[in-house]
Amino acid sequence: MAQKSKILVLGGTGYLGKFIVEASAKAGHPTFALVRESTVSHPEKAKLIESFKSSGVTLVHGDLADHESLVKAVKQVDVVISTLGGAQINDQVNLIAAIKEAGNIKRFLPSEFGMDVDRHHAVEPVTSFFNQKVKIRRAVEASGIPYTYVSSNAFAGYFLPTLAQQNVTAPPRDKVIILGDGNVAGVYVKEEDIGTFTIKTVDDPRTLNKIVYFRPRGNVVTFNELVSIWENKIKSTLEKVYFPEEQILKTIQESPFPANLMLALGHSMLVKGDCANFEIESSFGVEVTELYPEVKYTTVDEYLNAFV
Amino acid sequence: MAQKSKILVLGGTGYLGKFIVEASAKAGHPTFALVRESTVSHPEKAKLIESFKSSGVTLVHGDLADHESLVKAVKQVDVVISTLGGAQINDQVNLIAAIKEAGNIKRFLPSEFGMDVDRHHAVEPVTSFFNQKVKIRRAVEASGIPYTYVSSNAFAGYFLPTLAQQNVTAPPRDKVIILGDGNVAGVYVKEEDIGTFTIKTVDDPRTLNKIVYFRPRGNVVTFNELVSIWENKIKSTLEKVYFPEEQILKTIQESPFPANLMLALGHSMLVKGDCANFEIESSFGVEVTELYPEVKYTTVDEYLNAFV
Repeated sequence: MAQKSKILVLGGTGYLGKFIVEASAKAGHPTFALVRESTVSHPEKAKLIESFKSSGVTLVHGDLADHESLVKAVKQVDVVISTLGGAQINDQVNLIAAIKEAGNIKRFLPSEFGMDVDRHHAVEPVTSFFNQKVKIRRAVEASGIPYTYVSSNAFAGYFLPTLAQQNVTAPPRDKVIILGDGNVAGVYVKEEDIGTFTIKTVDDPRTLNKIVYFRPRGNVVTFNELVSIWENKIKSTLEKVYFPEEQILKTIQESPFPANLMLALGHSMLVKGDCANFEIESSFGVEVTELYPEVKYTTVDEYLNAFV
Repeated sequence: MAQKSKILVLGGTGYLGKFIVEASAKAGHPTFALVRESTVSHPEKAKLIESFKSSGVTLVHGDLADHESLVKAVKQVDVVISTLGGAQINDQVNLIAAIKEAGNIKRFLPSEFGMDVDRHHAVEPVTSFFNQKVKIRRAVEASGIPYTYVSSNAFAGYFLPTLAQQNVTAPPRDKVIILGDGNVAGVYVKEEDIGTFTIKTVDDPRTLNKIVYFRPRGNVVTFNELVSIWENKIKSTLEKVYFPEEQILKTIQESPFPANLMLALGHSMLVKGDCANFEIESSFGVEVTELYPEVKYTTVDEYLNAFV
């Protein structure tokens, strides 16, 4: 059996990053996490870093602002996965420069893990936010670095425990606010599954220079279907309050950053249906459950069982 | 009387930008608003653009990605104010390049209008977000362009009508969630006042290459004081639910972008007190009501009267 590729994760202690790091280690890849000195001493991160260590993950000290530290880290591995957060998208130009100089990377996954930023119907400020990822895509392509873009759509762990309602800690049992008419499909994927599938793509020639989309059957549901699944579980009917598109656009316009970004992301996803409103063509993309039909994943229906 | 300087605003149709454009026109500055072609046809923006026109504002077509259009726009004016949104902070490097090439700008105000990004106690992802503004500051300083950074702290129109509660459209009358212990001072300024004061700074030698801070008496209040002012108005006592810092930090850590950014901004402002937890030294800053004691502004107490 061929040696599994060595994987370096940037942003590994972040929201999604920890699932990528854990999936990588679990799949038997020699796994490296780049962390800043300041992160190691961060009280909220220290526990996570300990858990990484006990999974055999190698910590590498480095900083996006320190080119040499990046080149050194990159030279130790075959694959680089960035799960850097939304405020660090632009900083990935430094990472691209380091990967280019190192010259040894067989696959780079820039920080994506959302909707396809080249195929959307979002309004500002999401357009500008997505354009940061678009710029990184174009820079990766121009650099000639082999890449995969993972479009994993919505995080189940963020949206499902509240049915996308704010200021609640469990799915609602009385009333639910629905953006738009609730009839467009969203895609909600459990973070562990995003980790598992993502790691499978890194050594796969079928995902080379392609966008990998997540549309698992059982995770593609409209918001109305989502509410209906929940209603069936709790044997109760919720009051539905629909928030029409026109009013959403007005609220976006009248909200400062980042509240407008948050609502405009909801608009793109839940009103425009940007998770799944286009055909995946083989010229640019592949669907992850078609590639790996053997991988078991958690459906939306199964996910919601935990909250009944 | 000297001719008032000509002002170009970028981001003029955004949340804060419209108040800057209106204040500029009202103060008698020949006022120009740079808009993209796509903005003009945006249904939510069209009305605003009409109102600009009727205030005598000159629309200039241009795009941050089009260097020549920026240089041409900049050459028509004396002062450039950017109120570009949080997803376009980095793009201001293009604007700096254009201002440098044009060579005629007497004052540049980059997009700030929040807390002082060089003096804060924020956690990630705010650190990375603020660092984008820091980078722009350093680029402005390196370019030699005369500047003013406006640190206007929190938008009254965003925080006060809800007392910073989510999913409500009026200040709460039963229960209020308070980040931290509620005892650190925040600064809540009405958007019209931010506009008025900002425009006064552009021709003022005292604000040249300085940070202009907003700490008007009557706008500097702790969250507990804010709640108390509101309770006095409605003659009722609210239930207070305190959200301790440790729990806030954990929630930030467990939330994806941009939810984590939103909460981390609240943490910096309401738990750490980054609006007003340092002395303004004359070497770097000036306070706006000390500069312009004649300007009437709306206090927090007055602002809340509208909601009783």
